[in-house]
Amino acid sequence: MTVSDQQMANAIRALAMDAVQAANSGHPGMPMGMADVATVLYSKFLKFDPKAPNWADRDRFVLSAGHGSMFAYATLYLTGYASPTIDDIRNFRQLGSPCAGHPENFLIDGIECTTGPLGQGLAMAVGMAMAERHLNARFGDDLVDHRTWVVAGDGCLMEGINHEAVGLAGHLGLGRLIVFWDDNRITIDGSTDLSTSEDIAARYVASGWHVEACDGHNFNDIERAIKAALADNRPSLIACRTLIGKGSPNKEGTKAPHGSPLGADEIVATRAAIDWPYPAFEIPEDILAAWRATGEAGAAAHAAWNARLAASANAAAFKTAMSGEPNGAWLKPHLDSLIAAPQKIATRKASEIALTAATAAILELLGGSADLTGSNFTRTASTNTLDKNDYSGRYVNYGIREFGMAAAMNGMALHGGIIPYGGTFLIFSDYCRAAIRLSALQETRVIYVMTHDSIGVGEDGPTHQPIEQIMSMRLIPNLDVYRPCDTIETAECWALAIESASTPSVLALSRQNLPQLRTDISENFSAKGAYRLRAATAPRKAILIATGSEVEIATVVADKLEAQGIGADVVSMPSWERFDAQPASYKSELLPTDTLRVSIEAGTTMGWERYVGDGLRIGIDSFGASAPIDALYEHFGLTADKITPQIVARLG
Amino acid sequence: MTVSDQQMANAIRALAMDAVQAANSGHPGMPMGMADVATVLYSKFLKFDPKAPNWADRDRFVLSAGHGSMFAYATLYLTGYASPTIDDIRNFRQLGSPCAGHPENFLIDGIECTTGPLGQGLAMAVGMAMAERHLNARFGDDLVDHRTWVVAGDGCLMEGINHEAVGLAGHLGLGRLIVFWDDNRITIDGSTDLSTSEDIAARYVASGWHVEACDGHNFNDIERAIKAALADNRPSLIACRTLIGKGSPNKEGTKAPHGSPLGADEIVATRAAIDWPYPAFEIPEDILAAWRATGEAGAAAHAAWNARLAASANAAAFKTAMSGEPNGAWLKPHLDSLIAAPQKIATRKASEIALTAATAAILELLGGSADLTGSNFTRTASTNTLDKNDYSGRYVNYGIREFGMAAAMNGMALHGGIIPYGGTFLIFSDYCRAAIRLSALQETRVIYVMTHDSIGVGEDGPTHQPIEQIMSMRLIPNLDVYRPCDTIETAECWALAIESASTPSVLALSRQNLPQLRTDISENFSAKGAYRLRAATAPRKAILIATGSEVEIATVVADKLEAQGIGADVVSMPSWERFDAQPASYKSELLPTDTLRVSIEAGTTMGWERYVGDGLRIGIDSFGASAPIDALYEHFGLTADKITPQIVARLG
Repeated sequence: MTVSDQQMANAIRALAMDAVQAANSGHPGMPMGMADVATVLYSKFLKFDPKAPNWADRDRFVLSAGHGSMFAYATLYLTGYASPTIDDIRNFRQLGSPCAGHPENFLIDGIECTTGPLGQGLAMAVGMAMAERHLNARFGDDLVDHRTWVVAGDGCLMEGINHEAVGLAGHLGLGRLIVFWDDNRITIDGSTDLSTSEDIAARYVASGWHVEACDGHNFNDIERAIKAALADNRPSLIACRTLIGKGSPNKEGTKAPHGSPLGADEIVATRAAIDWPYPAFEIPEDILAAWRATGEAGAAAHAAWNARLAASANAAAFKTAMSGEPNGAWLKPHLDSLIAAPQKIATRKASEIALTAATAAILELLGGSADLTGSNFTRTASTNTLDKNDYSGRYVNYGIREFGMAAAMNGMALHGGIIPYGGTFLIFSDYCRAAIRLSALQETRVIYVMTHDSIGVGEDGPTHQPIEQIMSMRLIPNLDVYRPCDTIETAECWALAIESASTPSVLALSRQNLPQLRTDISENFSAKGAYRLRAATAPRKAILIATGSEVEIATVVADKLEAQGIGADVVSMPSWERFDAQPASYKSELLPTDTLRVSIEAGTTMGWERYVGDGLRIGIDSFGASAPIDALYEHFGLTADKITPQIVARLG
Repeated sequence: MTVSDQQMANAIRALAMDAVQAANSGHPGMPMGMADVATVLYSKFLKFDPKAPNWADRDRFVLSAGHGSMFAYATLYLTGYASPTIDDIRNFRQLGSPCAGHPENFLIDGIECTTGPLGQGLAMAVGMAMAERHLNARFGDDLVDHRTWVVAGDGCLMEGINHEAVGLAGHLGLGRLIVFWDDNRITIDGSTDLSTSEDIAARYVASGWHVEACDGHNFNDIERAIKAALADNRPSLIACRTLIGKGSPNKEGTKAPHGSPLGADEIVATRAAIDWPYPAFEIPEDILAAWRATGEAGAAAHAAWNARLAASANAAAFKTAMSGEPNGAWLKPHLDSLIAAPQKIATRKASEIALTAATAAILELLGGSADLTGSNFTRTASTNTLDKNDYSGRYVNYGIREFGMAAAMNGMALHGGIIPYGGTFLIFSDYCRAAIRLSALQETRVIYVMTHDSIGVGEDGPTHQPIEQIMSMRLIPNLDVYRPCDTIETAECWALAIESASTPSVLALSRQNLPQLRTDISENFSAKGAYRLRAATAPRKAILIATGSEVEIATVVADKLEAQGIGADVVSMPSWERFDAQPASYKSELLPTDTLRVSIEAGTTMGWERYVGDGLRIGIDSFGASAPIDALYEHFGLTADKITPQIVARLG
């Protein structure tokens, strides 16, 4: 007997309700509601090869409504991916199972990105679709010709980032992006009527999208809608009218199955209602076979693609791009040129010249700015505009969309073949912090170029002056925060950021000009996180630890101390994370605890206890103010004349 | 000779271009472009009394495009507010001038809120409009009957928060909110075509708004559009087609005047072009008189309102509400009831019962949740739903709009008469961090109820488990972060948050049940930030400092140490900020540096050096994991059995 679409869909429903029940925790409603859509998508449209989850030309599927993670685990298992196994699903939400509460890209190859923080999955999918078009423009249809599919819920659409993502996708004309909206009219608190009155279709149309609607429980109608989406050259939203928890006779269509197990009794009732008389976690052979067959078309496509790659003149360049191992040869000549002609420039400008060298050498670097190109200095001669008329460009005008930019960069990095970087003011890291965290959690190589990194912003005042931002990003696990002090360190930090394949980086850069302090380029000293820029001449009584624009001030303080016979080392510390990773011997030699240690950084002093103990912490623990830069540094006591006497006094 | 609208508008243009030129810094383009709209608004529609900037029933005006701050300073000066003076304007963007680069509510009474971080002004205005309707429902038309007006730019509309704010305003039917969109088709990087293709009007209509368009340089057309907006019962967007830098013959309509002075030559040319032959900062008497006359209607309205207030049966209640001095009498009986019947419950549940008492007693408390009501426990018997059918309610279903909720709460607190609180998961503080910062900078009493505050979240996994969030909020100036350990501390922290008229608060609350540890309610010990919950019995060798859910663990560790003859104090530290504000003698008595100090908190250990020096920091410096709570605490080493031996070993 032929296996029906309905039986296939019910396999998802059964796995979802049984896994959540076993865990006594989770969200059965979404996978049960969207099981029919999943069946049509996987059996008729999605291009995937379960035996090769990282095949470069696969379609990308993003479960933006990540709480419905059993949708992902069920489809991956049923279609025959090596992971998760049925035992992994039995251990849903248990310690060590790859079937985590929300899908984690670092646990399962078939999971394209980590989702759960609402709205970001769809926004990352926009980045994946951008990556696909860009690489298609670079390498041609033979090698890059796939789509990006998304399942999103009401939460994803209500979050602010949705506006940014949808606006960007519409503007860029990303016709290969197709979003299924699980239109179940239920949120956690109840009916969507409680909190929204929006005409979602009209909003998407207003942003340049194509919108279809279908009955999410009618296989033919789902197929019709998908075909219509494929035929349209705009990004598509398919509103799938569904019942949350579909199949559960007493709970479907209510908020009950959103985030709780159905309960043993209701599971019995559901088994009866959907004619699923099989034990938990057992999929009948014929149904499993039908599911396993869905990957066959993709496997054939993959084989054909392999043949095209082997024959392609682009093969080597394509493999290099996808390898994620960029050539670092640009750095040395760039450093040599800096040493040959030292420059007193802002580190944002130093970043521009480093980028000029790097983008010329590394074609995978793809930049942009959230409408601050002329301030972030993120554009170089090598990076033409990427827009809907020319996807080969390497520079994106992201608009005033910091969060959308960050999420899109995550998507591009996850797609592969691209090393994205994007600029904004450091203060607006607060606007995209949730995406920066996902960069770190997902281990993506995304480079945040964040300029105007202190009260050095000047007249724009406290709303635009970072105080706590640098320290707060140092708190995020697996994020490298760099605050270079001059042209040399800026280039070194760029090199480190580009090399770090599984760690995102933030470059905090000055608005104001800074002298070139480094003369020794025998080694990338920034790689150690901190190093002795200048050793004491007189007997050492103090160690000045500074970052970025305050390193220059530290050198002046050291001069003043030395003039009084007080020896002082100057330590430049561009990266806490890298310093913390050094051997204990290096750390104790650089920062011995028996010497007065003084931190100087134009930001919060909280946290500097780590390196100065009960020494002095010079910084700013209040909001900033509006004034010219020199007046501000004077006002906040960040001048050598104000710092030096404090050190002298402390030394007694 | 009668002064023309054009002359009045040109006074704004002149002040804007001259102040920016004098400062050699700032944004003349927006105030010059929107000067004509400002003239119509202030002379014909805005209800304001320059002699009483804090009059409760004034219209609220929000300059969401805060970079155009000279729009605000010019109109305030011209209409006759005491501040800013013309000398203040001469000192635009200089240290100590109230005319900061961006408008700061804490510097000038006539500035309703701090703007500059794009999109948030409009979103705060939504909160102000909510406050107006709620207080109107409570006190009637006689006392509360005003409008909220906004000037927003393309940046405000492109930011994600705009979607949340617009959705909320449309859903709540805030017809007294009118937004002027400065439709100048220019952003910092150039034409809006570079980054957006959106049909903005269609999007607003899709969200339930009324949309008008006008020629922003035609006084009659502006007036027509405003009248149409007033006649519609939906919130209104008025698209004002303008030229940025209008009046500057060589720069208007380009990106040049957005964020740079016009330059001396262009200012000469502009003076000629707009027929403004007066010296910088000099406004001819007749033009100034015409401007000063615009406040007369408001002054008369204010006098009439004063008479109505004097005669109102609601006068006392209204004054109490607006005073911002809520009665704290609810606390004592609540604490007594807790002592009478100790409860082992989650602190989110403890928060609910504290709120039940507080909301019954304090009618100004107005709550809500970003679609997590049943998880945050933010709703009480006293708080009915506030919606477009009943603005008297005291509970807002904010939807999945954390950032919009936070900004709306800022607006409500700034409006006055309301003490807003709102719930979400602590992890989503990252989504609304930019608004939390503005709560702190603006000195607003906003209370963030942030539950699920650690790996105690359990199965939802790393995307939902705060690690660095608590510490990162401790970094924000003027923000009180509370992490109470039991029912008693939760009530105490609520009382402190409600009392803090000029400081926002975050309550970090557990998902999991915690025992009631406190027995002494003779004093609000949480007010000290940290206190000795339990003193060592054996000779003291260690001090355990813990917060929230880890205080219970610390007491078990102490038991185990005492059983080995090692005396250990247990210090509960619900608030770093409050502890840091204590006298040095209190701090050194509680945490002497000659005793081993151990911090225990289920989050990042970075920062705890402040209190433990080189002692032990027990916590989590990586992302979390998906598993049941007990497995996670075991996995991350946060159990008494794993902590105790480390202390014993350290004590040698």
